[in-house]
Amino acid sequence: MRTIEWADDHIRIIDQTVLPHELVTLELRTVDELVDAIRRLAVRGAPALGVAGALGVALAARTAQAEGWDAERLRHEIGRIRSARPTAVNLAAGVDGVLPTLAGGPGAALRSALDLLAADVAACRALGERGADFLQAEVNGPLRLHTHCNAGALACVEWGTALGVVRSLHARRLVAGVLVDETRPLLQGARLTTWELREIGVEHQLVSDGAGPALIQRGLVDAVVVGADRIAANGDVANKVGTYALALAAARAGIPFVVAAPESTIDPATAHGDDIEIEMRPEDEVTSWSGVPIAPEGTRALNPAFDVTPAELVRAIVTERRLIQPSRGAVPGTGDGPPGPRTVTAAGGDAR
Amino acid sequence: MRTIEWADDHIRIIDQTVLPHELVTLELRTVDELVDAIRRLAVRGAPALGVAGALGVALAARTAQAEGWDAERLRHEIGRIRSARPTAVNLAAGVDGVLPTLAGGPGAALRSALDLLAADVAACRALGERGADFLQAEVNGPLRLHTHCNAGALACVEWGTALGVVRSLHARRLVAGVLVDETRPLLQGARLTTWELREIGVEHQLVSDGAGPALIQRGLVDAVVVGADRIAANGDVANKVGTYALALAAARAGIPFVVAAPESTIDPATAHGDDIEIEMRPEDEVTSWSGVPIAPEGTRALNPAFDVTPAELVRAIVTERRLIQPSRGAVPGTGDGPPGPRTVTAAGGDAR
Repeated sequence: MRTIEWADDHIRIIDQTVLPHELVTLELRTVDELVDAIRRLAVRGAPALGVAGALGVALAARTAQAEGWDAERLRHEIGRIRSARPTAVNLAAGVDGVLPTLAGGPGAALRSALDLLAADVAACRALGERGADFLQAEVNGPLRLHTHCNAGALACVEWGTALGVVRSLHARRLVAGVLVDETRPLLQGARLTTWELREIGVEHQLVSDGAGPALIQRGLVDAVVVGADRIAANGDVANKVGTYALALAAARAGIPFVVAAPESTIDPATAHGDDIEIEMRPEDEVTSWSGVPIAPEGTRALNPAFDVTPAELVRAIVTERRLIQPSRGAVPGTGDGPPGPRTVTAAGGDAR
Repeated sequence: MRTIEWADDHIRIIDQTVLPHELVTLELRTVDELVDAIRRLAVRGAPALGVAGALGVALAARTAQAEGWDAERLRHEIGRIRSARPTAVNLAAGVDGVLPTLAGGPGAALRSALDLLAADVAACRALGERGADFLQAEVNGPLRLHTHCNAGALACVEWGTALGVVRSLHARRLVAGVLVDETRPLLQGARLTTWELREIGVEHQLVSDGAGPALIQRGLVDAVVVGADRIAANGDVANKVGTYALALAAARAGIPFVVAAPESTIDPATAHGDDIEIEMRPEDEVTSWSGVPIAPEGTRALNPAFDVTPAELVRAIVTERRLIQPSRGAVPGTGDGPPGPRTVTAAGGDAR
């Protein structure tokens, strides 16, 4: 099952707001329905939002033809999709990727969007296989893995990045089990990653974020596999907050710490992890729980969405094109390339 | 205000189950009321439970005299107090400490219990001052501190251990602020430490456990101060799970990681941290939140209550008697002493 896809004449998504308790698919037939789904995080995850933006242009183009919108109306409706989540750079990039084909009509836009979707699927499959190859060579026998947040199919179209590596290893019958960090404050691990692993039949146990490093220390983990929100040219990796502690523990325990991410995550314009500005999210995500306060009224909080793992702690980065080993001195980018379209804020992407 | 004290003819405690939303004191006038308060964690924390056990013997002796219990009835009632939380070794030790004075009547038992209470207060004050001395010498100017769980007055009679150091520094106007880990799964940091810091007027911010190491890395912390549940003879420290990650981050950032604990926490019979068996707590503490599931039904969890920080990451241990610097090769105990009364399970103590 795909997180997002085109079905005949509409967009179909898995509604991530009701997981893990219910599996509901939504049919999005209008721009209004799509914008609403993006806003309320029914679809989330950087790659999935990129595809949502691309398919959204195709949906708008179809509707324009059917309802006789003029060019200005069509531009306006596409703009609403593009800005449905202002910090989600992939959403805007997905829209922008399809825009040039719009002159060719709804069919051309749809073909372009489906190409983008297919490229995401292919990239995840390829990097998953590459990560599995690496870990199969590094570690003997079935692996006990540890992951953080949700870098799975739900954040992409299917297969996933970190969970893509898990899926590829699982297909080779090489996964003994997965420890899943609950990933406070928004609990993507507890809610989404457990759900995905159950769907594909991989043994797993949920752990609190503070327990992860201790379990690595005690020899219960063979390798850590995580996704990334932004990778600097020197190999420093920005990912969901809580990742850095796993990298420290993995390095001390001498086990591989592997980052699985598409090439588009690497930002040659960002020389160093220190240059990545960390998005600070609302304090009440930490001070309350589903609206119920867990701390004295008025308690302040500090809620960074991401942290940065230094390159020297990263045993491998696997993308759809290559294997990079930062802890051995390899760097993913030189900074000589053209500046990317992304800002230096690791914001939005997989923030929820 | 004291967490637990003797008031005229009864035990008075702060009911920790309703913090931080309400401050309620309970008057415990019968063995039944005391046992109930211990069972439902209205009083918690290793030192506080020790005092509860000691005062409980005095309360039972008084009641025996007033109601004409025979010796067997008295022994039975004291046994009920002693086993109200079977894994809380301090509770039993508190009872056992007062038992020998029982022959002297209720007055003698009360004097013995109040001695134990006074000793706890004095120990926390002394180790707090010692920790403050150490940090004042190590770090220039007002300190930005980071702590985990609740090693405060609420776990003791007053003042606290890690928070005792914070209080002593605060009295010297040397605290710029404190970052408080929420401390999943039971949220002692979010619920109790924030409440204590607010009471004494120390600036603080709540952070999720995964964020702590990243904030240390980014230079927002001058020193980490935590308590301990058990300290091995070699200086390895068992404390609430999540502590180890802070120690790793502190070591990498080059800032002091300080453990504040009474001498009674040091167990010369435990040679090494690897010998400390870690209590595994119920899975539903992780998979649900106030009874509401946060993961798919049937999701398994791994819920270690403690982790072990290796001695080499510990810059200082401060007790009421001495300063020990394990990362410089000093060890708190040689193992030559008599085996302590404690089991090798770091269980119960400050488990909640």
